[in-house]
Amino acid sequence: MFIPNIDDYKIILASASPRRHYLLKEIGLEFEIKLKKLVEESYPDNLVKEEIPLHIAKKKASSYGAIEDMEILITADTIVWLNGNVLQKPIDRDDAERILKELSGKCHQVYTGVCIKSSYKHLLFSACTDVYFKKLTYAEIDFYINNFQPFDKAGAYGIQEWIGYIGVEKINGSFFNVMGLPIQKLYTELDDFIND
Amino acid sequence: MFIPNIDDYKIILASASPRRHYLLKEIGLEFEIKLKKLVEESYPDNLVKEEIPLHIAKKKASSYGAIEDMEILITADTIVWLNGNVLQKPIDRDDAERILKELSGKCHQVYTGVCIKSSYKHLLFSACTDVYFKKLTYAEIDFYINNFQPFDKAGAYGIQEWIGYIGVEKINGSFFNVMGLPIQKLYTELDDFIND
Repeated sequence: MFIPNIDDYKIILASASPRRHYLLKEIGLEFEIKLKKLVEESYPDNLVKEEIPLHIAKKKASSYGAIEDMEILITADTIVWLNGNVLQKPIDRDDAERILKELSGKCHQVYTGVCIKSSYKHLLFSACTDVYFKKLTYAEIDFYINNFQPFDKAGAYGIQEWIGYIGVEKINGSFFNVMGLPIQKLYTELDDFIND
Repeated sequence: MFIPNIDDYKIILASASPRRHYLLKEIGLEFEIKLKKLVEESYPDNLVKEEIPLHIAKKKASSYGAIEDMEILITADTIVWLNGNVLQKPIDRDDAERILKELSGKCHQVYTGVCIKSSYKHLLFSACTDVYFKKLTYAEIDFYINNFQPFDKAGAYGIQEWIGYIGVEKINGSFFNVMGLPIQKLYTELDDFIND
């Protein structure tokens, strides 16, 4: 690990997302996963774009409770934003189909908000990636939902799954942000948080 | 597979790259890997940008030899382009270090040229992705080369490896193109090749 002094801290990730666990492991960070309670992912109506996942990431950090000395807590939230609206996680199969039809042939934004918090300070940052989907056929949407069951994913897709390979024409921003964590920015911000 | 009539054809990938094998498998394509002979990856001096990998992809297809009826051959080449020059695969450890120092803190382009060929016609296409590296420290470059040995990679890095996670700030274009194959475009172009 190349973040000076990071070994002095115990890093805690409060997220159930397997993609976030995977990405944090890939940078070589030692961390624990601790989920104290489920946080209601609601937010005030007037929030837009990155304000929404920043609000939720902060709420996740607050509801975690007490942070010990020399502990650093990381929380995050990711939303899919299309034409001024949030596309949530699908509630069922029909909803996943509806969401993917909405994304088809268009550009949308993926915003992640991240909160890094210790016992006496916190830091918030966000990342945005534009994602361009080709026009998806009904057969492609049907095949993807049946085989990948994207019900735990904002926007009903995983860019690292079949639909990302055949459907995403290009992106503008961080690829890993679309998977749920802007990992390069997190690496840099953790360094600032510990050493600035 | 959702490319109409593709099951009538035998798809052959003439590439030794494990990343290309992986990406082609991910879209669910049935294919064989066949390498007849090593192709010298030279090109005329006056070529620039995507002209270079297109030239080499075409040369790989020509040197493959006879293509049978109902066979489709896929060849590809990827280059890293920085400030008007190609950054090749590193010849040794010092060269990998030199290349990564050059990419550090800058934006470069990754171009892939692809040739799709049957017994009576061929199609060429290319893709370009801009890749923005943060300023890499000497310790980061050293750690990456020692642990990942990026000697088979144009530009001495794999975006899907540690250095991609901690070092790439953003991209503009296809992520999988940087891994060696613009897989979404290939999926679309294969459909055109077979059904147009």
